[in-house]
Amino acid sequence: MAGSTLGNYFRIMTWGESHGKGIGVAVDGCPAGLPLCEEDIQKFLDRRKPGQSKFTTQRSEGDQVEILSGVFQGKTTGTPIALEVKNTDQRSRDYSAIKDVYRPGHADYTFDAKYGFRDYRGGGRSSGRETIGRVAAGAIAIKILESLGIRIQAYTKSVGEIQVSPERFDLEEMWKNRLYMPDAQAAREAEQFLEDAMARKDSVGGVAECVITGLPAGIGEPVFDKLDANLAKAILSIGAVKAFEIGDGFGTAKALGSQNNDGFMLDGEGRVVKMTNHAGGILGGISDGSDVIFRAAIKPTPSIASVQKSVTRGNEEQELEIKGRHDPIIVPRAVVVVEAMAALTVVDLLFAGMTSRMEWIRRIYDNH
Amino acid sequence: MAGSTLGNYFRIMTWGESHGKGIGVAVDGCPAGLPLCEEDIQKFLDRRKPGQSKFTTQRSEGDQVEILSGVFQGKTTGTPIALEVKNTDQRSRDYSAIKDVYRPGHADYTFDAKYGFRDYRGGGRSSGRETIGRVAAGAIAIKILESLGIRIQAYTKSVGEIQVSPERFDLEEMWKNRLYMPDAQAAREAEQFLEDAMARKDSVGGVAECVITGLPAGIGEPVFDKLDANLAKAILSIGAVKAFEIGDGFGTAKALGSQNNDGFMLDGEGRVVKMTNHAGGILGGISDGSDVIFRAAIKPTPSIASVQKSVTRGNEEQELEIKGRHDPIIVPRAVVVVEAMAALTVVDLLFAGMTSRMEWIRRIYDNH
Amino acid sequence: MAGSTLGNYFRIMTWGESHGKGIGVAVDGCPAGLPLCEEDIQKFLDRRKPGQSKFTTQRSEGDQVEILSGVFQGKTTGTPIALEVKNTDQRSRDYSAIKDVYRPGHADYTFDAKYGFRDYRGGGRSSGRETIGRVAAGAIAIKILESLGIRIQAYTKSVGEIQVSPERFDLEEMWKNRLYMPDAQAAREAEQFLEDAMARKDSVGGVAECVITGLPAGIGEPVFDKLDANLAKAILSIGAVKAFEIGDGFGTAKALGSQNNDGFMLDGEGRVVKMTNHAGGILGGISDGSDVIFRAAIKPTPSIASVQKSVTRGNEEQELEIKGRHDPIIVPRAVVVVEAMAALTVVDLLFAGMTSRMEWIRRIYDNH
Amino acid sequence: MAGSTLGNYFRIMTWGESHGKGIGVAVDGCPAGLPLCEEDIQKFLDRRKPGQSKFTTQRSEGDQVEILSGVFQGKTTGTPIALEVKNTDQRSRDYSAIKDVYRPGHADYTFDAKYGFRDYRGGGRSSGRETIGRVAAGAIAIKILESLGIRIQAYTKSVGEIQVSPERFDLEEMWKNRLYMPDAQAAREAEQFLEDAMARKDSVGGVAECVITGLPAGIGEPVFDKLDANLAKAILSIGAVKAFEIGDGFGTAKALGSQNNDGFMLDGEGRVVKMTNHAGGILGGISDGSDVIFRAAIKPTPSIASVQKSVTRGNEEQELEIKGRHDPIIVPRAVVVVEAMAALTVVDLLFAGMTSRMEWIRRIYDNH
Repeated sequence: MAGSTLGNYFRIMTWGESHGKGIGVAVDGCPAGLPLCEEDIQKFLDRRKPGQSKFTTQRSEGDQVEILSGVFQGKTTGTPIALEVKNTDQRSRDYSAIKDVYRPGHADYTFDAKYGFRDYRGGGRSSGRETIGRVAAGAIAIKILESLGIRIQAYTKSVGEIQVSPERFDLEEMWKNRLYMPDAQAAREAEQFLEDAMARKDSVGGVAECVITGLPAGIGEPVFDKLDANLAKAILSIGAVKAFEIGDGFGTAKALGSQNNDGFMLDGEGRVVKMTNHAGGILGGISDGSDVIFRAAIKPTPSIASVQKSVTRGNEEQELEIKGRHDPIIVPRAVVVVEAMAALTVVDLLFAGMTSRMEWIRRIYDNH
Repeated sequence: MAGSTLGNYFRIMTWGESHGKGIGVAVDGCPAGLPLCEEDIQKFLDRRKPGQSKFTTQRSEGDQVEILSGVFQGKTTGTPIALEVKNTDQRSRDYSAIKDVYRPGHADYTFDAKYGFRDYRGGGRSSGRETIGRVAAGAIAIKILESLGIRIQAYTKSVGEIQVSPERFDLEEMWKNRLYMPDAQAAREAEQFLEDAMARKDSVGGVAECVITGLPAGIGEPVFDKLDANLAKAILSIGAVKAFEIGDGFGTAKALGSQNNDGFMLDGEGRVVKMTNHAGGILGGISDGSDVIFRAAIKPTPSIASVQKSVTRGNEEQELEIKGRHDPIIVPRAVVVVEAMAALTVVDLLFAGMTSRMEWIRRIYDNH
Repeated sequence: MAGSTLGNYFRIMTWGESHGKGIGVAVDGCPAGLPLCEEDIQKFLDRRKPGQSKFTTQRSEGDQVEILSGVFQGKTTGTPIALEVKNTDQRSRDYSAIKDVYRPGHADYTFDAKYGFRDYRGGGRSSGRETIGRVAAGAIAIKILESLGIRIQAYTKSVGEIQVSPERFDLEEMWKNRLYMPDAQAAREAEQFLEDAMARKDSVGGVAECVITGLPAGIGEPVFDKLDANLAKAILSIGAVKAFEIGDGFGTAKALGSQNNDGFMLDGEGRVVKMTNHAGGILGGISDGSDVIFRAAIKPTPSIASVQKSVTRGNEEQELEIKGRHDPIIVPRAVVVVEAMAALTVVDLLFAGMTSRMEWIRRIYDNH
Repeated sequence: MAGSTLGNYFRIMTWGESHGKGIGVAVDGCPAGLPLCEEDIQKFLDRRKPGQSKFTTQRSEGDQVEILSGVFQGKTTGTPIALEVKNTDQRSRDYSAIKDVYRPGHADYTFDAKYGFRDYRGGGRSSGRETIGRVAAGAIAIKILESLGIRIQAYTKSVGEIQVSPERFDLEEMWKNRLYMPDAQAAREAEQFLEDAMARKDSVGGVAECVITGLPAGIGEPVFDKLDANLAKAILSIGAVKAFEIGDGFGTAKALGSQNNDGFMLDGEGRVVKMTNHAGGILGGISDGSDVIFRAAIKPTPSIASVQKSVTRGNEEQELEIKGRHDPIIVPRAVVVVEAMAALTVVDLLFAGMTSRMEWIRRIYDNH
């Protein structure tokens, strides 16, 4: 339980460091009979790949995934699916500038405090490359969800102070700019803002938003494995995320109960629906049939070219300038990671929910 | 794994419904040799008890805890500690008004969707009384932490728009008002705001803030069981919490990297410390030795006396007026629950961290 | 994960000591909609109760179970079911004879080595009374299995050298003698053997056998959570069990492959069945549709009245005579514990198996 | 929790099929600072490799392990260690003879019943090659144990009726014969017996015995995660194992309490020791400081060249002759797997035991 395992029913274990041999993940608990090929996974990995634009690092990485096990004749077999992406950019580098100094905003100091040891090659296990395992496993979860009519879509909601406007919101637009913002005008403004920040050797934060549609009511396990609780954990476990909110989130702290409660009514087909969705699709930790909507705040890239104050492993104060190109913003590349983590969480709870009722257990084993 | 278990090393399982026989919790994994008596636990339960002021429900509840196992001669034995609080207020009530109608903002509808079943007696398992198990187990976790010099303190940060002022912040003040606000003036304003809301048959939300001091650097397990990720899950699992942020939280989304990075320096005794604490005491998911600071947004009490629109189990639209007295705000009673959940999370990760280094394993088993 | 939790999908946590306030268990993961009352559980507890015959201790215990939560209107609600049996026989005793000396064959020494602490009151947590929690939770598991047409039956297979004869095997007979032996003649011989052992202040061991019928093929999770592996763990976790075998068990070590392989054929209705059942109903860790048959070896009662050599906590050698009445054999009272542990294991794996196929997941969520 | 994960503190997940791309394992929870190289692992894999003698299959396999992550500068980093052995012998074969027919004694039928799917290439996930992951991870566990002075040694105890004689027992001898029998004469007899069985197109079973020395008293978690219970699960999870016994095992069922109880005394240095070891080093599920001794019964190789009766996937009866060379006995190659599984179990419980006492927690975090 040392932290690289997630999920109980659809369980993943990831491994790999930034500059080791590769990044991998094994998925234990994928049902048999799901059609799966490498392209299903590759298309998600391609969305987190660096080098796509001037706002992402130019490091040339193939990031080609290979399915090592668990698929036979184009379908999952029910046994573990191992996925691997080799690190193609392991060339020997000069780490002498950062080898002994703790980079501010990074995990260098805390890994050392924990393990008495430091893998100084590009952050080791705390590198953003670790998310490859999440996205690869998440792609399988997404495929399962899609086959049940459940869709997960994340996008960049804001970059610094620049927000997607509700009036101009156009989901298709997110595929047309490299910031994955569903608002062409906001994207243009954000790009300018990012260029300015880069010119000042600085970086910026932002917000990712995610919407889950088609999720049936009843998913989430009271009292600790609530859907929102597990989503929060999954999302906060992504490197640079510093906050999570569901539905109106922090807004509810300033709301009145009469505003915040979502009344119930019947829709045209006589089904129970909520009149509003302040709750973000979750009541008492269980999905209510509305869209699940959450947001994550993502801090500015900690690797900046400006001079920073720090100390060395040998306990001496030392100024630090981080060389090399780094993304001025993390959010756009994190969007697909947010989707992956949401999918892993939802599949795990969907599976957990199958034993909620005796009637459902009989539905499986009486037809056995 | 059906949701009522939390933690891996210091593991709890809770049970009980609002109007059943009682609420309980069993703690598996408490080390032997911790002095423990019922008063250690009762003092925390007393802080969440209703009936303390005009802003909390008048229901007369004893909420006396009983230790059923795991303590012998005043010390823990290393075996499970079961704790129980009997429900003394189980008198037969008239639930006819809400028996068949889903209360907006409550889990009535979602429990029914999940289990095909509804315990309409005061919310059943989704009632706020469920937190008794959390607080009771959390009291043991807090005692463990205190013996290691680690302290956890939560308080009400805001009520609606009324915030604790950084200038007037006085922790001692929180014990002098029933809202647990560490700012006398803000507390007075908030009390007036609450009275107005009650007069309008409405309720209000707010924010709880929590500070953990004395936590050594190195706690938290990359990559999924990060300290902030597990805190987020623990806090979001509390009934009405809709958002969580660590350190500058959503503020980091608008910050620049040069502002947000906390530089390192040496303190007077030559130890590595951060110059600022935008990170809230956690880097890469691992504690960095600074104070851990997080906030939770808590929605307004969903039970309000105003007329609300809803539907029945029989799929008919119906207006609803919730009778009886209900707290106009959840935050003050949630403060101690936030502390408990933080403590449970931290103890679990402290225990997990004991096997981080071969040297520590030898420290136990070579002296065995 | 400190050892008092079992199961992942149908999870139990037990607590309580021999001479504390009581013994309890909470069940997390029982589906909603199972009819359940205290009598369903009490009838199993009555089978393990002492004081039933001259071969079981005369301690007068009520062992009445109380359902504390999780049942409403006669059915399970899907939330945790807590069960408690109060210890009615907590009267102050004179433990001075054993307080400081380690009883041979008991866990006195090892608990002290582990926890640096000893609960000398009748064995504390290592007492046989701990099995009350197992049997109570197992009764719920058995009720679930029965509703799916799966039955579990254990009995005493041998007492010392006296074995149940295959020719005289009569399951009904087990209910007619206090040794739960399905062979009247063997039971009579065994009773005589036990009386002789008691006269010599000695105790005897034996074997319990268990048969599971009606289990569909396909239950068990390769590679570590095999049905036989999980059964072995569950059975070996019972206090005095020293060995476990499935099907021909140790006999297979002396068999030839041509004898040991069970051929397949079609039965009268064209279904695949095995021609023999050397495998004991499990192939590759997965149920094959035949009866699952296993045996457990149970050591002689360690509490005997003869003089034994031992040492004290203060590291002095000391002879020991254990006073009071003790069962001369453990097997008959363990029979119902074996059934309970088997049921808990099978339910957990039945639930795990529900996500084996995409088709089954669709069967639940497409009809949602 | 779909079965390919083992352990809670030192956790492994394995993957891979007999004729897929390879077999792998990831280890989550290995402490930082353990010296580790591929040769540490390879030497154990070499012991399970086929092709070593006329009694093991001639399939030419390199089985070279590669460390993919978690090791830097020759030491473990505390992050997951992924290990992979590529399948070099994936050439296209003619499976038409067994593709549609269920081999007796194999998991063909049960996998199909479970997953609705069959990987007919050499058994897929149910192949003996799956144990490569166990042995590779076990090698790391063994290295941890050795650094704490704990040693695990298994050997072949019997082949059919031929047993190692206690008088001739010589541990060094096991390295001199391919059956890993610590008795030269028994090994010669067993080799003759195996040749006869092969000539008759048959196979034989046997028993492996394992001894753990140097284990401190106090390891094992009551009540469900007892050391013997977890060992039983780990050992029964190995493919062909049908029985497990600890200490005198099934012998205790025929013993008297006065014989079976191990008295305590003081050794020359005044330490508590047992006078005998009928218990096999475990009392109440916790190690008692004596050697831990257990045995596993391993069935005859199910793949035999004789004609066998079976049925097809299409539900037709069909006779089957299995072609190709197969080991006539599984035991010798299982010996190292038994050691690996024992080591994984012991390390996991050693780590679990570190939080048994408040004093030990202070020992880590007060020196932090």
